[in-house]
Amino acid sequence: MQPLILVTNDDGVHSPGIIALFKAMKELGEAYIVAPDRERSAVGHSLTLHRPLKVEELRENVFSVNGTPTDCVALAVHKILFRRPDLIASGINSGANLGDDITYSGTVSAALEGTILNVPSFAISVIGDRPFHYEVAMHYAVKVGSYILDKSLPYDTLLNVNVPNVPKLADIKGVRITRQGKRVYDNAIQEVISPWGDRHYWIGGGKPYWEQGEDMDIQAVLDGYVSVTPVHLDLTNHAALGQLRKNWQS
Amino acid sequence: MQPLILVTNDDGVHSPGIIALFKAMKELGEAYIVAPDRERSAVGHSLTLHRPLKVEELRENVFSVNGTPTDCVALAVHKILFRRPDLIASGINSGANLGDDITYSGTVSAALEGTILNVPSFAISVIGDRPFHYEVAMHYAVKVGSYILDKSLPYDTLLNVNVPNVPKLADIKGVRITRQGKRVYDNAIQEVISPWGDRHYWIGGGKPYWEQGEDMDIQAVLDGYVSVTPVHLDLTNHAALGQLRKNWQS
Repeated sequence: MQPLILVTNDDGVHSPGIIALFKAMKELGEAYIVAPDRERSAVGHSLTLHRPLKVEELRENVFSVNGTPTDCVALAVHKILFRRPDLIASGINSGANLGDDITYSGTVSAALEGTILNVPSFAISVIGDRPFHYEVAMHYAVKVGSYILDKSLPYDTLLNVNVPNVPKLADIKGVRITRQGKRVYDNAIQEVISPWGDRHYWIGGGKPYWEQGEDMDIQAVLDGYVSVTPVHLDLTNHAALGQLRKNWQS
Repeated sequence: MQPLILVTNDDGVHSPGIIALFKAMKELGEAYIVAPDRERSAVGHSLTLHRPLKVEELRENVFSVNGTPTDCVALAVHKILFRRPDLIASGINSGANLGDDITYSGTVSAALEGTILNVPSFAISVIGDRPFHYEVAMHYAVKVGSYILDKSLPYDTLLNVNVPNVPKLADIKGVRITRQGKRVYDNAIQEVISPWGDRHYWIGGGKPYWEQGEDMDIQAVLDGYVSVTPVHLDLTNHAALGQLRKNWQS
């Protein structure tokens, strides 16, 4: 029996990145796309609870959902696929998913939902200036997917993969296993005036600044490496437990 | 100079929980509400990037935003408040924010955004059956807020507070510093038929099952304690780094 692989993303079912990932995953098994009907970036790990969701079969093995990437994974695993998938691949996102920003990311959240549902999952993004070259990321998607199918993943853990946007495989220096970097700068906010003369605020356009560190995701990509970060679901700051317990008593 | 405190939530600016938290925070300093104009539950850590946001001043120190809790915090810190707040309090949410579910939570995400912006933050929720009693949670909001203002918080860390829904303070056994619990069960999905006869899916209504463990958030609340969990932004599974590095070479 060949592996069953779910492919999803947050750029929508028609984006070139998901078509590339679908093609890559077909090298590893039977692949299905279940993805949002349109772009759902920066939606974080959000589930649609206030309305029913519509699933449409667009063509063989390709489904769209009028919801978030997290919705897509939940529906695919419970309702759409004929059995529990062996792997979930989310992407290929056109744009980085690095550092603290991964908590906003629909791409990573889809892999998070897969992990909650006990399906080994990874997210993959291309980082750099447009136009995006998906061929190199496809190569690494196959590599990471086959690694996971072969060796599985640590408990409660997904892989967050970022690939420099380069045209040729030879332009990549290798793979670096990294930790999540730390963004220092804030989101920029523009003020815009509506046609009726009142002020609105538009979030976006900030230039992030990153803490340095060779083992950090952002640094790996800047150095020309593919960054692979093991991300887990446990957000507890375990190191802080003891101190808090002590302080709370006093 | 008294502390400047930002109060937000995901149930919306008119919810009884945020009014209760506002009242509690006024005991500690000058409090402002900047909150979504309507309920935005399960939105995760989502920023609105695709459209401008409108801020409305509803009454003195109370503002609504037609966006997510994360939007509210970003706008409050950068545009609405006259200076950077000393504390962000998110809630009081009517319903638990425990275990893996905190990654979906708008309440916790607001505190996450505060932490990214380097403002000490906490999220507070009441857990139990309706009707909700906010008085006990208000008492602990003051306690936690004053703890943070006094002792600050570990780097990159917020406090996620869950309070049993009981009418009297004497019904609470104490405070337990906990780690994030692990949800085992999946989200339930109902099938519903539209007026036009086609099938839709509606996510919700699942009964979660939790891993046992006395130091876990869910167990503390079940035992009648207030649960306080230090949650940090670093999702790296540090323990997995070495194994992955070894495996990846071979």
